[in-house]
Amino acid sequence: MNTDLQDYSHKRYNILTGEWVLVSPHRAKRPWQGQNEAVSNEVRPKHDPSCYLCAGNTRINGEINPNYEDVFVFTNDFAALQTDSKNFQVEDGLLLAQSEQGICKVICFSPDHSKSLADMQPSEIEKVVFACQREYKELAENELINYVQIFENKGAVMGCSNPHPHGQIWSQTSLPNEVDKKDKHQLAYYNKNKSSLLGDYIKQELSKNERIIFENEAFVVLVPFWAVWPFEAMIVPKRHQSNILELKDNESLLFAEAISVLTKVYDRLFNTSFPYSSGIHQAPTNGKDNSHWHWHMSFYPPLLRSASVKKFMVGYEMFGSPQRDITAEIACNKLKELI
Amino acid sequence: MNTDLQDYSHKRYNILTGEWVLVSPHRAKRPWQGQNEAVSNEVRPKHDPSCYLCAGNTRINGEINPNYEDVFVFTNDFAALQTDSKNFQVEDGLLLAQSEQGICKVICFSPDHSKSLADMQPSEIEKVVFACQREYKELAENELINYVQIFENKGAVMGCSNPHPHGQIWSQTSLPNEVDKKDKHQLAYYNKNKSSLLGDYIKQELSKNERIIFENEAFVVLVPFWAVWPFEAMIVPKRHQSNILELKDNESLLFAEAISVLTKVYDRLFNTSFPYSSGIHQAPTNGKDNSHWHWHMSFYPPLLRSASVKKFMVGYEMFGSPQRDITAEIACNKLKELI
Ligand SMILES: O=P(O)(O)O[C@H]1O[C@H](CO)[C@@H](O)[C@H](O)[C@H]1O
Ligand SMILES: O=P(O)(O)O[C@H]1O[C@H](CO)[C@@H](O)[C@H](O)[C@H]1O
Repeated sequence: MNTDLQDYSHKRYNILTGEWVLVSPHRAKRPWQGQNEAVSNEVRPKHDPSCYLCAGNTRINGEINPNYEDVFVFTNDFAALQTDSKNFQVEDGLLLAQSEQGICKVICFSPDHSKSLADMQPSEIEKVVFACQREYKELAENELINYVQIFENKGAVMGCSNPHPHGQIWSQTSLPNEVDKKDKHQLAYYNKNKSSLLGDYIKQELSKNERIIFENEAFVVLVPFWAVWPFEAMIVPKRHQSNILELKDNESLLFAEAISVLTKVYDRLFNTSFPYSSGIHQAPTNGKDNSHWHWHMSFYPPLLRSASVKKFMVGYEMFGSPQRDITAEIACNKLKELI
Repeated sequence: MNTDLQDYSHKRYNILTGEWVLVSPHRAKRPWQGQNEAVSNEVRPKHDPSCYLCAGNTRINGEINPNYEDVFVFTNDFAALQTDSKNFQVEDGLLLAQSEQGICKVICFSPDHSKSLADMQPSEIEKVVFACQREYKELAENELINYVQIFENKGAVMGCSNPHPHGQIWSQTSLPNEVDKKDKHQLAYYNKNKSSLLGDYIKQELSKNERIIFENEAFVVLVPFWAVWPFEAMIVPKRHQSNILELKDNESLLFAEAISVLTKVYDRLFNTSFPYSSGIHQAPTNGKDNSHWHWHMSFYPPLLRSASVKKFMVGYEMFGSPQRDITAEIACNKLKELI
């Protein structure tokens, strides 16, 4: 391993977005005198009569949830994107705006209010994967939808307003910023090398074995070289697949296993239900040739040193570049030990 | 005013970065059931014996602060960037890293531990501006330094670990991501139009008067059309200046007045010491022709509805694009009313 990367300030390049992260390894030693997060290790009931995501309960708009048994998907009652919203455009000197249409859905991972993905069996998580595939497929067929963003905000510190295990699916007409960057960088590489950027990247990572947390037959779980969040991780399919519909044979179960291993390790790290935002980046559904896309799932967890001390992405990070203290390699070793 | 922008989901283009923000005006009505921030309205003493930024106190590294009377600048005891750090480079297949050198300083705005910029007189704030000019000038002369980022993290919710009024100055060899984007977009416009992008933008904003919070002879305080944070604002000099050294005559006092007006309004909005990260983006100190730069100061405050409810930039925002509910125009009106 290059020890300079563990000893001196440097920046690392994100091959997917073209942006840099500033790494200051020596700074991991500074004392923390700032805000501590509230740690909630409350045990939740399996069914909470006041939870608007639990089976059989009534939602804010008056609809009653079915008595679902595994996964339940519905359209967000306060959707940020709608299909019946007006089509318009503003091009007025230096003011530029474009209407955006879309569909926002909520996906409940389990009827069990007390669980998180980390508490679920791979076979149960696989049902969530199947539901994501159904949604992606249906949305892909909708002419209005050119991109589908599947994500989860877990934990109050990540803005999650309900602890019931759930994620969201926001789909829309145009490509969001982050997707656009990854689209361009993957396309440029694919055109030049006739192979998948992420595919080649994980081959290199597997041969180095410095940032690999876990692997099975079909997936690699690693801390990317350019990770921004202290314990950021990425799940990448070994086979080049542009979207989750291309999972075949037992790959959906192996994907579920990778999610299970990572989320369990996360919970063990600080002995708390680990907060994060996770998301799947995959091929747009814009009808174009998207074979340059190699889909992947990323986890951005904010905790830094304990269940109550998080990394703040503030001043320098907002105006300059993201910055981290603990290196990707050290983070990976800490996570790997906990499997 | 275009009412579509107040009624339907749309995206707005940031002319400085080339990125988009998703705006969902109808969503401002949804109820909040998530995390509330702790509100601390504690009255602080003018001098806190345990504060490492107060005059005469001893810092963690054993150094004693002078009995400073207005502004005090020192090198960060836990600097993320250092000048004596090793120069190296990694170019290994798809792994790309580059050592980064720099200087991180802390700037105390006042010896008075109980104050914030909002409590200071414009004449006191002007001394902070003068100190920033001195630092920018000195750092610009350093061959190692090609960019100087001045910023403030205010409030525990913005990762500020000490309530003593202070900011930071991180300077470094390469251009951070955000600066690089603004550099490219300003340059392209300047080359094409032979005028300043931001200069032309504020002319348009002044003539429309829909997003202007305040103006004086030399400065405009506005909510930019593409604002991301609920009450984001920007202070822009009316005269085309590429960095803060170009302030002349009474402009430094007028800049201080603009800061004073904005921070006071912020405090009134939710009747709390308003948290934010602020930063000055200005010309790099790389010895190149930077006349395309028009410096400006931005404020990114997280609070959304009250002193305890903030906007979370999480799942969709991290994987897609920033998203906001309340529009820039409504935010501007709320702030303007409080002057
Ligand atoms: O240097 P400080 O104030 O201790 O640290 C704060 O500001 C830094 C620069 O924005 C961030 O990297 C830290 O996460 C934050 O806690
Ligand atoms: O839709 P929710 O879960 O109420 O809201 C949460 O996730 C959204 C999508 O990342 C964010 O825009 C909100 O700020 C956050 O609180």
